[in-house]
Amino acid sequence: MGERTSLDAITAWIAANVDRLDDEPVARAAAAGRVAAHDVVATAPLPADDYAALDGVALRAAETVGASAYNPLAFRLVDGSAALPPGGAVHVAAGAPLPPGADTVVAHDQVEIAASCCTIVEPAEPGSGVDRAGAHVAAGAALIRAGQRVRPSTIGALAAAGIVDLAVTRRPRVRLVPTRDGDTDRDLLSALIGRDGGIATTAPAERARATLSAALRAPGADLVLVVGGTGPGADDHAAAALADAGALAFHGVAIQPGDTAGVGRLPTGVPVFLLPGAPAACLWAYELIAGPALRRLGGRPIGLPYGRRRMTTARKIVSNIGVVDVCPVVRTVDDRIEPIAGFGEAGLGAALRADGVVIVPEGSEGHARDTEVLVYLFDE
Amino acid sequence: MGERTSLDAITAWIAANVDRLDDEPVARAAAAGRVAAHDVVATAPLPADDYAALDGVALRAAETVGASAYNPLAFRLVDGSAALPPGGAVHVAAGAPLPPGADTVVAHDQVEIAASCCTIVEPAEPGSGVDRAGAHVAAGAALIRAGQRVRPSTIGALAAAGIVDLAVTRRPRVRLVPTRDGDTDRDLLSALIGRDGGIATTAPAERARATLSAALRAPGADLVLVVGGTGPGADDHAAAALADAGALAFHGVAIQPGDTAGVGRLPTGVPVFLLPGAPAACLWAYELIAGPALRRLGGRPIGLPYGRRRMTTARKIVSNIGVVDVCPVVRTVDDRIEPIAGFGEAGLGAALRADGVVIVPEGSEGHARDTEVLVYLFDE
Repeated sequence: MGERTSLDAITAWIAANVDRLDDEPVARAAAAGRVAAHDVVATAPLPADDYAALDGVALRAAETVGASAYNPLAFRLVDGSAALPPGGAVHVAAGAPLPPGADTVVAHDQVEIAASCCTIVEPAEPGSGVDRAGAHVAAGAALIRAGQRVRPSTIGALAAAGIVDLAVTRRPRVRLVPTRDGDTDRDLLSALIGRDGGIATTAPAERARATLSAALRAPGADLVLVVGGTGPGADDHAAAALADAGALAFHGVAIQPGDTAGVGRLPTGVPVFLLPGAPAACLWAYELIAGPALRRLGGRPIGLPYGRRRMTTARKIVSNIGVVDVCPVVRTVDDRIEPIAGFGEAGLGAALRADGVVIVPEGSEGHARDTEVLVYLFDE
Repeated sequence: MGERTSLDAITAWIAANVDRLDDEPVARAAAAGRVAAHDVVATAPLPADDYAALDGVALRAAETVGASAYNPLAFRLVDGSAALPPGGAVHVAAGAPLPPGADTVVAHDQVEIAASCCTIVEPAEPGSGVDRAGAHVAAGAALIRAGQRVRPSTIGALAAAGIVDLAVTRRPRVRLVPTRDGDTDRDLLSALIGRDGGIATTAPAERARATLSAALRAPGADLVLVVGGTGPGADDHAAAALADAGALAFHGVAIQPGDTAGVGRLPTGVPVFLLPGAPAACLWAYELIAGPALRRLGGRPIGLPYGRRRMTTARKIVSNIGVVDVCPVVRTVDDRIEPIAGFGEAGLGAALRADGVVIVPEGSEGHARDTEVLVYLFDE
């Protein structure tokens, strides 16, 4: 492990070397949260025709001109199955098609209704009370654009437009290759990968350089994460195994925790990240390096999927210069933030106790008290 | 449908009538995003013993006192399987247990190493380079507290503590009872319910008051949503069917869209919400009324699960007084917001085109231009 590379350089490497995966079809109802691979357009207007937007009587707006409390106008209630005759009105329920000829719907509580006629006491606007054909979505307009995430409302609109399935970016297949036995990093990473839309599988632990290198080269993964063995110790073979299997681009990153992380790729182009085995370092090397790459493969925004808020420091936050320092913080009773014991000292315990983190850039020694800073909040 | 009830009164009704469900065990690895039903505490300290935090040599800090470049102190490298003899040092890898007697680890690059001895040129602090027993989590300390969501880091900590499963709040079972055929509301609501941690099933459409009432009473649901039939029309039986099946608490809510929504409960205590059939109204009656109740059943925070940001209006936002008005907005190129055609006019199309919404309270007529307002953003 040589000089530590800046996180900015790693991020640039990811942008240059990691591409969005190809796409696959998915049923509309199962598409929530997936990322559209292409624009999907409405082939017909929505609504397809003019529909009543409320319960009321449908009539011709032009025939209501001049109506007032002093000049109530009567309309003959007719059956709605045929075209509307002059002077006629038809009871319609919200969502029902307008009878041909009608162009407005007056709500029931605005109308005086008798057995065979109804009386209007103010003029109705054409189009009022009507969902006009194409008013929601015009024919040819996008229901979703390439790169957008499918929201619940998108699924509703796709259903309304009769679109059964759509192309979404394939979920990245992530292979974890541990260098020692143990559940902690595997379960931690599997949860992170699931959160970011990936599908995790875990290979058997490989300690030796040759077998580790072979495990990296095995086909079937879009992203490989080596877990542990990233340090400078005699038993640490992750970097050498990656160099054997493909190319090691960087080993050592200026982040804390996680500074023994590494980056490279296989001859097939599949990116490989070396994550430290200490759980807190594994967590942050994932969050700052592997996670952005995974989200990029899956077509998602690469930023940390946490809540973001500008908050004020109640105590100063001290950071090491020369590294991107991940500082755990808690919210105070007056909704400011203060630092707690860091990941180096408290490991995953810091993640359990923190409400979020402040990420202090490489060139900074931290933040003074009473400074407004960007906070990444875990639970928002 | 009488006078419209304020959203605040509905929210208070939900707080008084909807309780968190009972709990169920779930395997640690499948617990991401679930809500802990009880505190889970570490039964042993984490780490369980003192471990090396880095690759280096373990020794006794007291024996390094006085070391300097002018007074290098030599330590004999010994095998680490037994207790550390006086004057001895042991090679350790990060994560390895300290040999009994050692209390500090000096990084390899701070030590001069020969075949059988190593030389120290500055004093080491006791505990430096060591993950001390209990430094991450003390025995008896909480790994997660009742009501907290399980984060990926929690899963890692549970794994480290050897906890295989935990009790989480059961996922609410939600029955959709449509009053007409069609996919749009079903798919829209199923996606919303899935997002909020519920399990949706859809009953056959029931148009008649008696069969609708019977469908509401069917057992097996923690929450029932009637979809459509909420208006004042002759074919609208949702409110009457709920009154027949149990009790109708409110019909008509001062929200726009969604003002024909209703609220009540079955004799079993199961809450029932009546959602309008028009998709945009269905969406917002869910988001403002049914969603909070569902999230409360599941032990989640009841607020809208959107990103929140304070942003400045680039144009004024006009709202009707007397209703909570959901106003769709888009972000401008200079990262302000401006309103677009509303849900009443543009239906679900407004949800497709908007980046988020501003929710204008009942007593307000909207927001002037250049005002900072709270924006709920769909994709953050």
